[in-house]
Amino acid sequence: MDRIRRNERMTAMMKLLSGTPNRIFTLNSFCELFGTAKSTMSEDVDLLQQVSKAFDLGEVETVTGAAGGVRYRPTVSREKARVTIGDLCEKLSGTERVLPGGFLYYSDILSTPEIVNRMGEIIATEYYDTQPDFVLTMETKGIPVAFATANALGVPLVIARHSSRVYEGSAVNINYVSGSGSIETMSLSRRAVKENQQALIVDDFLKGGGTAGGMVELMREFNVKVVGMAFVMATATPEKKRISGEKALMTLEVTNDETPVAVVRPAEWLR
Amino acid sequence: MDRIRRNERMTAMMKLLSGTPNRIFTLNSFCELFGTAKSTMSEDVDLLQQVSKAFDLGEVETVTGAAGGVRYRPTVSREKARVTIGDLCEKLSGTERVLPGGFLYYSDILSTPEIVNRMGEIIATEYYDTQPDFVLTMETKGIPVAFATANALGVPLVIARHSSRVYEGSAVNINYVSGSGSIETMSLSRRAVKENQQALIVDDFLKGGGTAGGMVELMREFNVKVVGMAFVMATATPEKKRISGEKALMTLEVTNDETPVAVVRPAEWLR
Repeated sequence: MDRIRRNERMTAMMKLLSGTPNRIFTLNSFCELFGTAKSTMSEDVDLLQQVSKAFDLGEVETVTGAAGGVRYRPTVSREKARVTIGDLCEKLSGTERVLPGGFLYYSDILSTPEIVNRMGEIIATEYYDTQPDFVLTMETKGIPVAFATANALGVPLVIARHSSRVYEGSAVNINYVSGSGSIETMSLSRRAVKENQQALIVDDFLKGGGTAGGMVELMREFNVKVVGMAFVMATATPEKKRISGEKALMTLEVTNDETPVAVVRPAEWLR
Repeated sequence: MDRIRRNERMTAMMKLLSGTPNRIFTLNSFCELFGTAKSTMSEDVDLLQQVSKAFDLGEVETVTGAAGGVRYRPTVSREKARVTIGDLCEKLSGTERVLPGGFLYYSDILSTPEIVNRMGEIIATEYYDTQPDFVLTMETKGIPVAFATANALGVPLVIARHSSRVYEGSAVNINYVSGSGSIETMSLSRRAVKENQQALIVDDFLKGGGTAGGMVELMREFNVKVVGMAFVMATATPEKKRISGEKALMTLEVTNDETPVAVVRPAEWLR
């Protein structure tokens, strides 16, 4: 390839940066890749920042210091988050998705990549500052959105299980009281987490907070600090959960009518 | 913003296209976004194709016809796939990750976004031509890589469960014989899948093929055609699996030494 032009460099950089969110790339690595001077690269990065801002495509940031360089974060503006979640609420509200027992069917939403990635980015935007070392979820339904959040944050996902598995090695088990009042077990491989790390809890559904409380307790066993808790959906009742400080994207109420109606609304901070 | 320059347009397009893989964007939508003529946009797209090729960043493709436009596929060249999987094999081989019973610990690998996304892209590259409507996996460990594959293919993920759940609505249950010889249940919500769709099965581990066979049978119940099967890891023995036509990324052998050693190698098609 001949001399590489600015539009080529910028396009390739945007792809590389946004393909590995929140990872710092040194300016030198780009200089080597493109055979350009550092001053030229700095100009390219300035332009990347401007484009990202102009088209609301997340943030390109320069990080100074010894471990400095450039990174991309798929941050979502509050305005854009409101639209995304508002649309989702409309889709989920009504009678069609209500199941016997007043449950809501939304497993399809929880595993459609386009929707899941946007939800993960909205959650990550709220928690970049808390600098979690990993995202923790409890199997099964929350795994895709927890993974998307971990991806946006550039950290690993850790999955707690209902029981310990032979292929996970030795594990820490705790018992917790679930929403329905029964005693359940939660298990996590000893190898999954290191002491003094920071965890962001992400799950699909929050009702009483039993499972979330279990995850908090599990992290205590590992000497890990929980820096935040985020949920896709929280029920309007009970209003008082067993945990506090959490953020949900949507709230759910199902009416007691003969034909029950689901009323799904953006959480208060997104209204 | 003033007149939008080519480098700005190309950067924004690359971000938008690669952020939603395999989705077709009409040229018109980009013309409107940037306020440019169609001829200019075509030139931009040509340049995007060249950059993607030059830096091995996947493929930008123009699709002709009524539903035509531009799409991005994060295809991975065979050469790059070999390096990625080769590195992974090196990381997994040895004595450290072997658990009692000859199992291999690699849950961390299966939920590190950077690694999982690359594996998903390598799998998707092999199956774009088969045009699956969704990716199917069985809970739990394979969910992240199945999700990453679904993301690269631009299709939903469908998760089969060990038992039917009240919040999934009515479900189809089948029984299958697991690798250990016990009878297990596999359950999938009726709402999750439509008749005559095409499924790509993705899972983390293949030993005898019991679970995979169960998924094939489950799809038969839904009148869905299985167009492919991909696994992160397949055991070297038994050589004969209950399914056929599958692709694995790596093969695993654990020696019978006093201190057992894991020998992880790229699958034959990746050597």
